[in-house]
Amino acid sequence: MTDAATPGGSTSDIAALGIDWGTTSFRAYRLGRDGSVLETRRAEAGIRAIDDGDFEGAFEQLVGDWLDASPAVPVVLSGMIGSRQGWLEAPYLACPAAVADLAAAMVPLELMRGRRAFLAPGLSTRSAEAVPDVMRGEEVQILGAVDRLGVERATLCLPGTHSKWARVDAGRVVGFSTHMTGEAFEALRRHTILGATIEHAAWDDAAFLSGIDRSGDPGGLLHHLFGVRAAGLFGELDPARSGAFLSGLVIGHELRAAAGAPGGNRGDDPVILIGEPGLVRLYGQALGRLGVASREGPPDAAARGLHRLAKHLSEGGTR
Amino acid sequence: MTDAATPGGSTSDIAALGIDWGTTSFRAYRLGRDGSVLETRRAEAGIRAIDDGDFEGAFEQLVGDWLDASPAVPVVLSGMIGSRQGWLEAPYLACPAAVADLAAAMVPLELMRGRRAFLAPGLSTRSAEAVPDVMRGEEVQILGAVDRLGVERATLCLPGTHSKWARVDAGRVVGFSTHMTGEAFEALRRHTILGATIEHAAWDDAAFLSGIDRSGDPGGLLHHLFGVRAAGLFGELDPARSGAFLSGLVIGHELRAAAGAPGGNRGDDPVILIGEPGLVRLYGQALGRLGVASREGPPDAAARGLHRLAKHLSEGGTR
Repeated sequence: MTDAATPGGSTSDIAALGIDWGTTSFRAYRLGRDGSVLETRRAEAGIRAIDDGDFEGAFEQLVGDWLDASPAVPVVLSGMIGSRQGWLEAPYLACPAAVADLAAAMVPLELMRGRRAFLAPGLSTRSAEAVPDVMRGEEVQILGAVDRLGVERATLCLPGTHSKWARVDAGRVVGFSTHMTGEAFEALRRHTILGATIEHAAWDDAAFLSGIDRSGDPGGLLHHLFGVRAAGLFGELDPARSGAFLSGLVIGHELRAAAGAPGGNRGDDPVILIGEPGLVRLYGQALGRLGVASREGPPDAAARGLHRLAKHLSEGGTR
Repeated sequence: MTDAATPGGSTSDIAALGIDWGTTSFRAYRLGRDGSVLETRRAEAGIRAIDDGDFEGAFEQLVGDWLDASPAVPVVLSGMIGSRQGWLEAPYLACPAAVADLAAAMVPLELMRGRRAFLAPGLSTRSAEAVPDVMRGEEVQILGAVDRLGVERATLCLPGTHSKWARVDAGRVVGFSTHMTGEAFEALRRHTILGATIEHAAWDDAAFLSGIDRSGDPGGLLHHLFGVRAAGLFGELDPARSGAFLSGLVIGHELRAAAGAPGGNRGDDPVILIGEPGLVRLYGQALGRLGVASREGPPDAAARGLHRLAKHLSEGGTR
């Protein structure tokens, strides 16, 4: 179930245990005093995979030995584990929010043998039209990334099932928006007529970029979608290219809505991309096609964010 | 299987048999000399429901008695029956196209006992960016509707699984665009996280109109979709209203892209809506919310279009 990816150092070097526990994955880090990652454990044990809500049992099995080996260090959890569907709910905290605000809103969680852990809250924000938006887990990655990169202001994009675009200013997440890009793509390619003309295992970079280009034409996403079908009928888009083209269409619509014109409200800052390497590469390509500069964020953003929260716990001592 | 909705006149009054045979439904009309509908038969015998491609057997069962009773009148079929998945393919005809063009491109189909029927072609068009689009069946409804209404210029909308927006000028379909609105809505509400917060059987007109309004905000459709989820989490959109709101969002995005600004390239013509009465009512409400005038098209548009094609056959005599 677990996969110890990084060899551990001495247990006396360990300053905190950080756990990023999402819907589909579990990642645990042994963190050094300087925020370095001493050891990582990954498991396909997202909260959706935990039987009967026995999060404590799963936690013991996944990192019980780490808890025993470091009885006095802070333990911080972030992600969907703190949602209504998780172990215990840590209510959403409204933006703007810095690390100190997240730390102050953490919810204590009593573990076996008298041990205590802390659950990070998610973040909420409202659009100019007062429509709510939420994230849970990404805020820790975002604040970890800007700390690691040493920047106070940034625009970040975390592509995925529900892509997040966030703006950081003066070290605080000041606002963000979610785009249902990955999930809509899956629903469209698996559950509409488009699926019949898509060879799902195939990929083609040029077709992906054609989809990005097409997303800028008039007519809207719903019209562009049908074009995948029509082009297939006319032999102008073959099944081996259709999936990548559709991906480009959907991602292109996200990027044009979220990133706006080159420069935009970002000034000249490149967009910082955080996520699964394949997706980060794709989004980088797509942004480049739109003339928007981007850079890869640090790979250990979540661990860094968890370390920052843990540090507040050790220093604050209010709990 | 069939449902004889209208009582027939004398068989000597019958000038043509017209059949609108789509993916999910079958409608047959006995047509009078003036284009009036003397009798209608409806069956849930769309081409998808026909076993082993036995279209001839199904056709005999559905209207064999009508064929026998009127041995000398033209028989015209339109819709997906003329597609690659249908009985025989009638290739797409490129816009612009008038009734005479459609009639000249019809494909003869030999029936049992030496009888011959004619399959109407579908239409194709290309956007300004040369991306293809297609329709099959709607063109007959469109040309029937403008004939019935006595207009030479019109903008028409046929809402549905794949909504069609068409422009008619000088009695010709000059161009059109398809929006995958109905199918995308079904995929999103059945196969994404949004389904969990939707009470599918419920409806709420005010929520539908809120969705129409929201579709005009910045952020794009993919962002607006996630808002349904976030508003649900905050108790600002309850399950009984979520489905109608989502419907308004998706339809709103179609309308803003397709109908454009009030007036637009339509001049002051109201949009003519053709389709299932419930959908026509909804689209009329939605267009009104956007300040775009609309009117219901004639209910017998398909029959009228089929009659016009049959008349060309009788008069042309080239086949």
